[in-house]
Amino acid sequence: MKLATFRAHITGPARLGAIVDDLIVDLKALGDQTGEIIPGEIHEFIEQGPVAVRAANALLKACQDKWPVGTAVPLVNVKLLAPIPKPRKNIFGIGLNYVEHVEESSRTLDTSKDLPKQPVIFSKPPTSVIGPGDAIEHNAAITQQLDWEVELAVIIGRRAKGVSEADAMSHVFGYTVLNDISARDNRRAGQWIYSKGQDTYAPQGPVIVTADEIADPHNLNLGLKVNGVEKQNSNTRHLLFKIPTLIADISAAMTLEPGDIIATGTPAGVGAGRTPQEWLWPGDVVEAWVEGIGELRNPVVAVGAPYPQSRAPKAG
Amino acid sequence: MKLATFRAHITGPARLGAIVDDLIVDLKALGDQTGEIIPGEIHEFIEQGPVAVRAANALLKACQDKWPVGTAVPLVNVKLLAPIPKPRKNIFGIGLNYVEHVEESSRTLDTSKDLPKQPVIFSKPPTSVIGPGDAIEHNAAITQQLDWEVELAVIIGRRAKGVSEADAMSHVFGYTVLNDISARDNRRAGQWIYSKGQDTYAPQGPVIVTADEIADPHNLNLGLKVNGVEKQNSNTRHLLFKIPTLIADISAAMTLEPGDIIATGTPAGVGAGRTPQEWLWPGDVVEAWVEGIGELRNPVVAVGAPYPQSRAPKAG
Repeated sequence: MKLATFRAHITGPARLGAIVDDLIVDLKALGDQTGEIIPGEIHEFIEQGPVAVRAANALLKACQDKWPVGTAVPLVNVKLLAPIPKPRKNIFGIGLNYVEHVEESSRTLDTSKDLPKQPVIFSKPPTSVIGPGDAIEHNAAITQQLDWEVELAVIIGRRAKGVSEADAMSHVFGYTVLNDISARDNRRAGQWIYSKGQDTYAPQGPVIVTADEIADPHNLNLGLKVNGVEKQNSNTRHLLFKIPTLIADISAAMTLEPGDIIATGTPAGVGAGRTPQEWLWPGDVVEAWVEGIGELRNPVVAVGAPYPQSRAPKAG
Repeated sequence: MKLATFRAHITGPARLGAIVDDLIVDLKALGDQTGEIIPGEIHEFIEQGPVAVRAANALLKACQDKWPVGTAVPLVNVKLLAPIPKPRKNIFGIGLNYVEHVEESSRTLDTSKDLPKQPVIFSKPPTSVIGPGDAIEHNAAITQQLDWEVELAVIIGRRAKGVSEADAMSHVFGYTVLNDISARDNRRAGQWIYSKGQDTYAPQGPVIVTADEIADPHNLNLGLKVNGVEKQNSNTRHLLFKIPTLIADISAAMTLEPGDIIATGTPAGVGAGRTPQEWLWPGDVVEAWVEGIGELRNPVVAVGAPYPQSRAPKAG
């Protein structure tokens, strides 16, 4: 199932939907019309796990020839939000998790050229999340080095603490696309939260594809274009630490909860690693995609949020 | 006002209380008994801001000679939780924010000996939060270098984006004590979330003191004892980046929301900086205190959470 969070009207509430061809079906409304109880919020849906997925799938199948009034609308008529618009904790990001990206980073950033021996984990706050079509903010007072990173993101379905690699995949609810936007000139003493955690720096979507529909998450093409020009193109089979390892490793120390998001890292082709280096500027459009999930398109816009001049970084 | 979140019974719900002498007053119950509406959950209370603080203070004063039945119980009879038991995003931590701690860190960890030019920010997930008396977990399969860090933590009261240093303090709701527990052998490519973000690594409390009762947050003694022996003793006047700077700096890039927590950094005297180095072990008791707020006491206990042996760090 392809799940999306959407608004039917610009001021309407966020609703949970399933995408069927070119329609979006309001799952709670469909349940209400047919006497089933289907959660209308993504965290509640995830917490019900495979039960909710099976119930919703059965309903969608039963109704596919004739949608009850008010349950299905053309996808083009709604505003998609991030599938999880308000995560309950920071997103876990994984750095340096594709071999060629480790190499390009060591040439141009301050990271080691050696492959990491353990996953390199950082975080992006819930306030960094935006959805398809939403604007990535370019604040020239803060950064002159805004960069892109397409990533496969894993959505946790079941609480995980101390799980083995063998059990890890049973804790996965589904997958989405995440663009790990990074202001390269905002790293501080090696810490990445300021460079990667700013408002609008975690575009996500367009949908969560449930785990049952992804045969092998380690064999998905993924890529990214800026203004229509391909910048990244790789496959998740090149992930250095695979998803079971990431879940086992994080959950050995930090409890993972339903709705938690792990962005698995980006392949080569980021702006910092190019010769000459390239950055995002207002007016650019970024398209990040993962095979089987979809394309996440976001414009870059200029904002003028005040920043104390005494601490503004120099242009670089 | 001194606010605490507590359970009156071991299986009871979390409730919001105000501490008056040796009693804890259930604020929602007091409101219910007197016809006032006082929120019973800390985020709701913070979101109402000074209105809730004034209303609660007036009620407490009016009732202080005779508490309505069922509103006040002896503090010794309840279990205090962390004042914010479930933050809505990761805690913002500030590294290297006391001059002498920068020096001790550069000698023994992998940080620079130069003072940071901008705040060094990392994060601790909501799952790291524990309250007074709760156990700090020592998992010998993960760490042999468990360390302490007493800190003054700032609780945000009002949404802050792009605020100036001059306006920053009006966004502060109050203060608490946070012990920034750190597994020094769990840093990865410089990132601190694995070393500082593990379950139980963010003891907090015992109370939030509202901002109106702290005359100067930059002149508070603070310290920490292990098994009764003083290890840290300093004053918040030595903070390198003061609270208005931290709020202005973070909010220039990342929106701060009511209930967000900023741990302002630790002074010298951590275990890593001592000669010889000292670490926490099961059976130890850590007491972190900040003047005017209180003392946060936590035992260290051994846990045996499974950890994949192939990735277990070597003892050091």
